[in-house]
Amino acid sequence: MSLVNGIPSDCLPVEDRGLAYGDGVFRTLRVQGGQPVWWRDHYAKLARDAAALNLPCPQAAILLDEISILAAGRDGVVKLVLTRGGGPRGYAPPSDPQVTRIVLFSPPPDNDPGQRVEDITVRWCTLRLGRQPRLAGIKHLNRLENVLARAEWHDPAVHEGLLCDDTGAVISGIMGNLFIVSQGALMTPDLAQCGVAGVARTRILRAAGEWGMTVRMTRIEPQDVQSADAVMLCNSVQGVRRVARLEAQTWPSSGWADTLNTWLYEVD
Amino acid sequence: MSLVNGIPSDCLPVEDRGLAYGDGVFRTLRVQGGQPVWWRDHYAKLARDAAALNLPCPQAAILLDEISILAAGRDGVVKLVLTRGGGPRGYAPPSDPQVTRIVLFSPPPDNDPGQRVEDITVRWCTLRLGRQPRLAGIKHLNRLENVLARAEWHDPAVHEGLLCDDTGAVISGIMGNLFIVSQGALMTPDLAQCGVAGVARTRILRAAGEWGMTVRMTRIEPQDVQSADAVMLCNSVQGVRRVARLEAQTWPSSGWADTLNTWLYEVD
Repeated sequence: MSLVNGIPSDCLPVEDRGLAYGDGVFRTLRVQGGQPVWWRDHYAKLARDAAALNLPCPQAAILLDEISILAAGRDGVVKLVLTRGGGPRGYAPPSDPQVTRIVLFSPPPDNDPGQRVEDITVRWCTLRLGRQPRLAGIKHLNRLENVLARAEWHDPAVHEGLLCDDTGAVISGIMGNLFIVSQGALMTPDLAQCGVAGVARTRILRAAGEWGMTVRMTRIEPQDVQSADAVMLCNSVQGVRRVARLEAQTWPSSGWADTLNTWLYEVD
Repeated sequence: MSLVNGIPSDCLPVEDRGLAYGDGVFRTLRVQGGQPVWWRDHYAKLARDAAALNLPCPQAAILLDEISILAAGRDGVVKLVLTRGGGPRGYAPPSDPQVTRIVLFSPPPDNDPGQRVEDITVRWCTLRLGRQPRLAGIKHLNRLENVLARAEWHDPAVHEGLLCDDTGAVISGIMGNLFIVSQGALMTPDLAQCGVAGVARTRILRAAGEWGMTVRMTRIEPQDVQSADAVMLCNSVQGVRRVARLEAQTWPSSGWADTLNTWLYEVD
């Protein structure tokens, strides 16, 4: 089920720049009872990402209306996509782009854990993320690196892959951001060169600030992950997930994942 | 005018992975009298790019038929797009993807020079290409770097921008590949880390080989371009274009652009 520019449709014009160049941004978020969860953060991030690509962002009220119509009181997952729309052939962005906005609804994931923290098994990805500071942090539509990384395994017992950049720094999971705890300090990778700065990460950083806890956004090496007391991945659909196993290594539960998950859901 | 999986349509399903992730590849090529120009090279490149993303490539005969139907005996430009089609939400590629193939026709460009070499003015782009060897050379749908680079200027007197990677090496134009001549030697950037290895470049390299001329695929610095005897850009729609001006610097015609353009059109 989807709306394209507010009209029920599952059709994007083939000349849209979202297809031609991945020229757009997106969000994936929960809806509960038809209402988007963490909407203020999602809209702020959407607007910031759009601005980074010089893409006009629709007003929040328009998107909220469309989410509400599509979700129709249900629980589920909404994907919002903004593209630079159509225009003459060629890379040059039109001076007055007519943004295409797409709202898609899907039911909750299978085996939805709700707000419960899941234990997951992760692996190292072979693919190294390229560094592009002009696009770092933005949830844009150029996601082939994620696709190639996710294609590295088929074992359903492995839930996520950890990605490093081409200098060897750990950046994130394929689908979510990384936090680790070492000697009482909370750390998350610096995303100035690559990766996506997701809303769950932003909320956890804000909560940590409100609780007076310092979080270091820093370079994290694979051995920092391996020697951490707790390793967690987070995104807006699955909340915080506890890394119980990374390749052959296992971690007992330390309580940190539950703490971060509580912060994630409860912070203003 | 377009065909989607062989059916007249201008509609891509909004759940297609081509939109969601830029998960696909494309070609832009000339048609003359309804027939694709340099088809053997274009199909070989399409098949190689698809294989690099583990994407099944439709048979050449199917694409040829569709181009022929759409072009209907005319001259113009055809764009072919292959995507990994639909599938469940998430980055994991479906094990048995149903590829979406899109064929678009458009009339020849305005002020079409035909097979004549145009003199162009180019500038240096500020954007630096990120390096990603897994995607280097492939004409995939993740083209935000090209969009951002092309957005750096609006002056219609500037025709192209030269792109460097984040180590400072010159890689290509935004829309075409680069050749330079220095002291009688023909050189083109090594594309192992980024850039698109286009069909016009491939044909010129093949022609040079047939004429017994050595071409060095190598690291090229900005000063190598500035001190070159001839600077040229090439692609399948515009052929070889002679760089007559780069920022404040100008080059008199040396004949090299005409030679390369002749090779481009005449090589087997």
